[in-house]
Amino acid sequence: MKNITLKQIAETLGISITTVSKALKGYTDVNENTRKSVLELAERLQYTPNSFAVNLRTQESKTIGLVIPEVVHHFFSNVIRGIIEEAEKNGYLVIILQSSESVASEKKQIELLLQKRVDGIIISLSNESNNESYFSQIMERKIPLVQFDKISKLIPSSKVIINDQKAAYSAVSHLIAKGCKKIAHIRGPVNPQNAIDRFLGYKKALEDHNISFDPKLVYTCTDVTFEEGKSFAKQILASHPDIDGIFAITDLVAVGVLAYFNDHKIRVPEDIKLIGFSNWFMSQVVSPKLSTVDQPSFEMGKQSFHLLLEEINAKKDGLSFTPKTIELDTTIIEREST
Amino acid sequence: MKNITLKQIAETLGISITTVSKALKGYTDVNENTRKSVLELAERLQYTPNSFAVNLRTQESKTIGLVIPEVVHHFFSNVIRGIIEEAEKNGYLVIILQSSESVASEKKQIELLLQKRVDGIIISLSNESNNESYFSQIMERKIPLVQFDKISKLIPSSKVIINDQKAAYSAVSHLIAKGCKKIAHIRGPVNPQNAIDRFLGYKKALEDHNISFDPKLVYTCTDVTFEEGKSFAKQILASHPDIDGIFAITDLVAVGVLAYFNDHKIRVPEDIKLIGFSNWFMSQVVSPKLSTVDQPSFEMGKQSFHLLLEEINAKKDGLSFTPKTIELDTTIIEREST
Repeated sequence: MKNITLKQIAETLGISITTVSKALKGYTDVNENTRKSVLELAERLQYTPNSFAVNLRTQESKTIGLVIPEVVHHFFSNVIRGIIEEAEKNGYLVIILQSSESVASEKKQIELLLQKRVDGIIISLSNESNNESYFSQIMERKIPLVQFDKISKLIPSSKVIINDQKAAYSAVSHLIAKGCKKIAHIRGPVNPQNAIDRFLGYKKALEDHNISFDPKLVYTCTDVTFEEGKSFAKQILASHPDIDGIFAITDLVAVGVLAYFNDHKIRVPEDIKLIGFSNWFMSQVVSPKLSTVDQPSFEMGKQSFHLLLEEINAKKDGLSFTPKTIELDTTIIEREST
Repeated sequence: MKNITLKQIAETLGISITTVSKALKGYTDVNENTRKSVLELAERLQYTPNSFAVNLRTQESKTIGLVIPEVVHHFFSNVIRGIIEEAEKNGYLVIILQSSESVASEKKQIELLLQKRVDGIIISLSNESNNESYFSQIMERKIPLVQFDKISKLIPSSKVIINDQKAAYSAVSHLIAKGCKKIAHIRGPVNPQNAIDRFLGYKKALEDHNISFDPKLVYTCTDVTFEEGKSFAKQILASHPDIDGIFAITDLVAVGVLAYFNDHKIRVPEDIKLIGFSNWFMSQVVSPKLSTVDQPSFEMGKQSFHLLLEEINAKKDGLSFTPKTIELDTTIIEREST
């Protein structure tokens, strides 16, 4: 069975295509009986409007694009879920692309989405990315854009973020309250704002508690992986055996640290206390259970979609839209590792 | 800046729209100098073809739909990655929808995708689903369809699967080889073929090793969660304290069992041996590390896309296409829990 067209319905009923179209759209200037026969036949033949033609007419695709660094990632998969659930409720579909932390992919994917004429784009930047020129293309074309989590302050779009600096400050203060005096930080790469802010929060918490900041206690991830966590744990033990606390950029890295410590009979929290970031599911199932910072990932997805929708609707109504920034709250989850 | 049209390029250069269109498509009957000016101007104005108009003309959306039960799921997020990576390489975009294991959502989502006129659909069925009528709609409209992982044999589409029965048979045989004599199975819900097949593999392995099958040792999940794993672990200890092995439908459930055992000082593997299924990332980070069946999720995504593409291309060329079934290999990963 091929897709049914308005023409086929019109020919079957011996009426004009315009009448069929009007009947389907519920126009009142169509005879009630005619309207009923059209609807019945459309239903029976499983007629669906040709979305390409509808798109061409309305210049709306009812589709948005989402570009994220990684799909296989507890935080991002929760954000995806938040976005696609809200999008579906509002009649939008979501195309998902993974930049794999590459600026080149991100550029190509944004061009694809622009070419596809999506109604808007939601993005969490790759680690390499920082106000690249393709963002000005989005701006010039007035395509609604929302950044979340890994953002660039230089891109003048709406944003959904947490206060990474404040959250990291709380995490490190928690370690200090638990008695830690020499705290290492395994940080994220140099570019992303969230890695910078978490580092600044770490530094400020030390300073505010009269612990002098020592740059040698800061380890910088390239890929933010479980393996890096293991390898930095080894380095920390070798170079700074008197460390009594570690704040890791994310739970994945913290779990790597924990795996190394478990294998080498370092007791957590007795010898070294450890706190992660993000509250990944796995942080509850490792042993000891990992203390962490809860990041409202699902909510972040929902709010990102809502901000985007607000901008899409403003654009549709010809209204100007001023980008907004939503800052979501985080909480310290205290478990066994501290 | 609005989107640039062919008309604007034509007017700027004082030539016809047809000439502009031909030049952009590389037709040879356009004067070389004209072609160059068109391409230069198009480049300078960042012209992209109106994809709605292109779609209407070619009746191709270069978009496929993916419907899966859960996004926040290590197995499915790996499949998603396999699909979107391969799709992108081949110039296709992927719309992702989550059925949340609900037949009602699945139905609505498939209708949405049909209405959107995607070029094909990849699906892993919800637990409730079993050859529902909306699949015949896909078939009647000749929309290419691939099922993976949770499939219905009754739906005559291409499929990418593992041999669940064989894989479960190996997992249970592994427990027996390690000395288990009384093995419980925490199985999946009643409907999905993979839960049925894993149960059958469990039963056959027992029988082939002269261990009599006892239906009281089979526990059935409703939602296949960490919490269910914990709760069945408690029930098993209470009703069958002499059990020495457990085969769980998936790692998430096995990790729940392990959490309960760790909290109640049941030693794994000394008191009870435990094997999961899927090789989720978390199975490597729990303590003791979980033995499991490795399921090639990323490869499953890649192969699903390739089968779909084969069918899309056959359809485009007006060729008939016979659905294919690809069966991928699984392997037992032996870790500390057995």
